[in-house]
Amino acid sequence: MFLPEKRDYAILGTGALGGFYGACLQHAGHSVHFLLHNDYDVVCKSGLVIESKNGDFTLPKVNAYQDIHKMPPCDVVIVSLKTTQNHLLPQLLPPVLKKDGVVLILQNGFGIEKTVADIVGEQRVMGGLCFLCSNKTGAGHICHFDYGAIKLGEYANSVGVTERMRQIASDFKSANIPIQMVDDLLLARWQKLVWNIPFNGLSVVLNATTVEIMENADSRALVKQLMQEVAVAAKSSHHLISDNFIEKMLINTEKMVAYKTSMKLDYDAGHKMEIEAIFGNVLRWVDVELPMISMLYRQLKFLDL
Amino acid sequence: MFLPEKRDYAILGTGALGGFYGACLQHAGHSVHFLLHNDYDVVCKSGLVIESKNGDFTLPKVNAYQDIHKMPPCDVVIVSLKTTQNHLLPQLLPPVLKKDGVVLILQNGFGIEKTVADIVGEQRVMGGLCFLCSNKTGAGHICHFDYGAIKLGEYANSVGVTERMRQIASDFKSANIPIQMVDDLLLARWQKLVWNIPFNGLSVVLNATTVEIMENADSRALVKQLMQEVAVAAKSSHHLISDNFIEKMLINTEKMVAYKTSMKLDYDAGHKMEIEAIFGNVLRWVDVELPMISMLYRQLKFLDL
Repeated sequence: MFLPEKRDYAILGTGALGGFYGACLQHAGHSVHFLLHNDYDVVCKSGLVIESKNGDFTLPKVNAYQDIHKMPPCDVVIVSLKTTQNHLLPQLLPPVLKKDGVVLILQNGFGIEKTVADIVGEQRVMGGLCFLCSNKTGAGHICHFDYGAIKLGEYANSVGVTERMRQIASDFKSANIPIQMVDDLLLARWQKLVWNIPFNGLSVVLNATTVEIMENADSRALVKQLMQEVAVAAKSSHHLISDNFIEKMLINTEKMVAYKTSMKLDYDAGHKMEIEAIFGNVLRWVDVELPMISMLYRQLKFLDL
Repeated sequence: MFLPEKRDYAILGTGALGGFYGACLQHAGHSVHFLLHNDYDVVCKSGLVIESKNGDFTLPKVNAYQDIHKMPPCDVVIVSLKTTQNHLLPQLLPPVLKKDGVVLILQNGFGIEKTVADIVGEQRVMGGLCFLCSNKTGAGHICHFDYGAIKLGEYANSVGVTERMRQIASDFKSANIPIQMVDDLLLARWQKLVWNIPFNGLSVVLNATTVEIMENADSRALVKQLMQEVAVAAKSSHHLISDNFIEKMLINTEKMVAYKTSMKLDYDAGHKMEIEAIFGNVLRWVDVELPMISMLYRQLKFLDL
């Protein structure tokens, strides 16, 4: 599982997340190709502008594409679309992925690697969990507020930490992006869902920030119960989320400043929410009763229309 | 269990419900005494104005009181406050209730009769379930839109339909208010909760009318699941709510015009919601797991602040 010595990157989805990471990679000297949609003309003309707490920079010229068939095949294809666009992946991935290349999914949620594995084969799939606060404030203009670390793992079972993971990690580190390699991607996904399910869901249904949710005894209790339900779901796939982990996550959230979740930002902006990736897939693929997650899912689906 | 031949009525809470029923009773020639708070001055001066689909009428002069201690002891004390005011009942009930009188609770929810029984003794408690659409549109001014029937029952176990129930029913019938006497008040309460729990709760959390809730597949599924959870709760108190009953209630609701629930009206008006009477008491007094009702309860408590 080696990638060539110099890796070409494709960014499918040049938004707040893909645009930020791709720009950092290019800024560090790597070869990056960006797929764009609405912002294509602006980015061709003016490049990408990154305002970052790590230092602002501009890339006046980037390899921008509107058509996947005009992109060169790449070693690492980063999927950073909203999951609500994932129905496009069967068309997008095959043309842009080199024979020995790998797809790196930097999306929220659960079960997306499986979808991609069905397209490109499970040996060519990796996942990453991003802990990033960034916004796209205009076409080709991204503001990076805080964090930025990625947990990186192979999708294929029991392969552990591979050489190509180290290669990708080295590229990201050279771009000042903290990377942690994990040997159990699914566990990392469950751990992230412990936070994402209660806070993304309740922030929309209750119209609240993380601080408002944590300060009220009832919503705080709901958060904890939903976290415990995620642990029940994880257990059914043989992954342990301990009570201690949940307690720590509650305490860490209490220390955060008031924060609008990504789902709340989408909802307020009138965008489709990532309900299926974060909630629907868990409910479909886990064989235990999850009454609270299920109720939150249905409430969100009502509000999504 | 007899009341005197001519019954004096007290109305504790002269709002959309108590004001309407009390005015109807007085209009039919019965002796009625109204407890008022904010509307006292206006009602002393101008009486009560009822706009009703059964015919408008005005009562220029009513027995209005601001102070419970100035009211005469009555044979039938109707509790038609919002349940959020029920902490006042230990002060309000004893002065106004005749020795052989009865308290008739015309409130939404569950377990309120028990609270009142603790104050006046369970032999002096009745409950009524009102199927009434009315609004208070101004001080002493009530609009009655639709329905109006009451299901009346004794609180004390196994006493069945009593003579005093027949006496009260006869007074209400003389006032053109349809009355159905039931020998199992608690079953009637459970049956009403089958509707009230899902629709009151979801209408607030999802900011939706009954029609919007019924038209969306996900919220409709939530309604049905919540109704089934109410049936589980009822079963634990040995009351049967059949699947057939639930299906009928869904079909009846589909036939209704778009309707804002009482809880939604309270929420939109910035009033406290009757969360404890409708949800909290069920959760406290029933010894089975009710995860969906419990979640809805906590969501409402968050939104109530």
